[in-house]
Amino acid sequence: MPQIGFLGGTGIEAKGLALRFASAGASVVLGSRSPERAAQAADACNTILGGRVIRGLGNREMIGVSELIFLTVPFADAVDALESHRSLFGEQHVIVDVTVPMVFRNGHAAYKAQDSVSHSEILASHLPPGVPIVAAFKTIPALILEDQEIPLKCDVVVCSDFEQAKLRVIEAARMIPSLRPLDGGSLNTAYTLERMAVLAAELNRRYRSRGARFKVEGI
Amino acid sequence: MPQIGFLGGTGIEAKGLALRFASAGASVVLGSRSPERAAQAADACNTILGGRVIRGLGNREMIGVSELIFLTVPFADAVDALESHRSLFGEQHVIVDVTVPMVFRNGHAAYKAQDSVSHSEILASHLPPGVPIVAAFKTIPALILEDQEIPLKCDVVVCSDFEQAKLRVIEAARMIPSLRPLDGGSLNTAYTLERMAVLAAELNRRYRSRGARFKVEGI
Repeated sequence: MPQIGFLGGTGIEAKGLALRFASAGASVVLGSRSPERAAQAADACNTILGGRVIRGLGNREMIGVSELIFLTVPFADAVDALESHRSLFGEQHVIVDVTVPMVFRNGHAAYKAQDSVSHSEILASHLPPGVPIVAAFKTIPALILEDQEIPLKCDVVVCSDFEQAKLRVIEAARMIPSLRPLDGGSLNTAYTLERMAVLAAELNRRYRSRGARFKVEGI
Repeated sequence: MPQIGFLGGTGIEAKGLALRFASAGASVVLGSRSPERAAQAADACNTILGGRVIRGLGNREMIGVSELIFLTVPFADAVDALESHRSLFGEQHVIVDVTVPMVFRNGHAAYKAQDSVSHSEILASHLPPGVPIVAAFKTIPALILEDQEIPLKCDVVVCSDFEQAKLRVIEAARMIPSLRPLDGGSLNTAYTLERMAVLAAELNRRYRSRGARFKVEGI
């Protein structure tokens, strides 16, 4: 069972993923700058789960006990979050980037372009050499992850330039019911996934939904 | 019933779409520089359909009798195809761009980037002002469209800066069984759709399939 930590563990994205992974039997730790806030977020999850399953720790302590570290801060804070913990990351870790650089302009979801490079690739350049980063879960809405009553019924495309790390994330994702992990190749596929997340947000807006997500038919 | 024409009607993409639309009851004309080759392509389709349903004409004649004109030439020929018929296009037409600027490098599908602008937007600049262009069907593999035995079971995201033209393409797409059209907003969404088509090709390669296509869950 993988040890899964969340860097920025008090938001809705972390909550949703933590609940899904903990329900599936993974060991989950929510991290926060404030250990107290981490503990409160963990308590809220544990109330839903009906048991003391998820722990809350300061980010440093969370990193110390985690294998897969999900980066669940707002996208605009992600570089800072990596830089301020840079010395703590090692080759034993896998950083899982779920961020999407999305902004809203005139009520429409838009991609915050940064030189045709994915946000994941930008983040990769802020990690020590050899620390693997994997992009995943970008196209699944946090609101859907959080509502445990909703079966996901979708795919998660996982991509990375680190093959073993990618396989570890694929194995972890396979634990979650009605979610199929697909190997999307190298990290630059994240650019497509981030664009797809923006398309899903736009489809949600047009069709008054909150749960648009993708299933690949035919494979 | 819409009058549907294909500019570059002798390839597999045209054949697949023509068969699907003709089976659904649309009036379909395959166009080609050579009227003879257009007639041969139409004959091949009609043999599958079991009746003289689809016509083959020279491209000029096809444009004269069509409302929706699907651009089904190889992506690298698309600008030339529009420029050489530019004077024939009018506001009564809807140009439907299904092209994807995809290349293969070292066996991997790759997006042929052109300044972060979609191929559809580039093509739009080669049309007379006021002639509507709509991007659609980019993410559905031609091999799947062509095999009438395979239910599509997927969505087609349709996008355009011309609202009425977009609705006409959505209405036409709705004729095809087990295909759901979704309004993807303005034409720049085509950039995402083109990237998704490349991702589908890469997933096909990895999973030894030929039919990867997308379904949006949750709306």
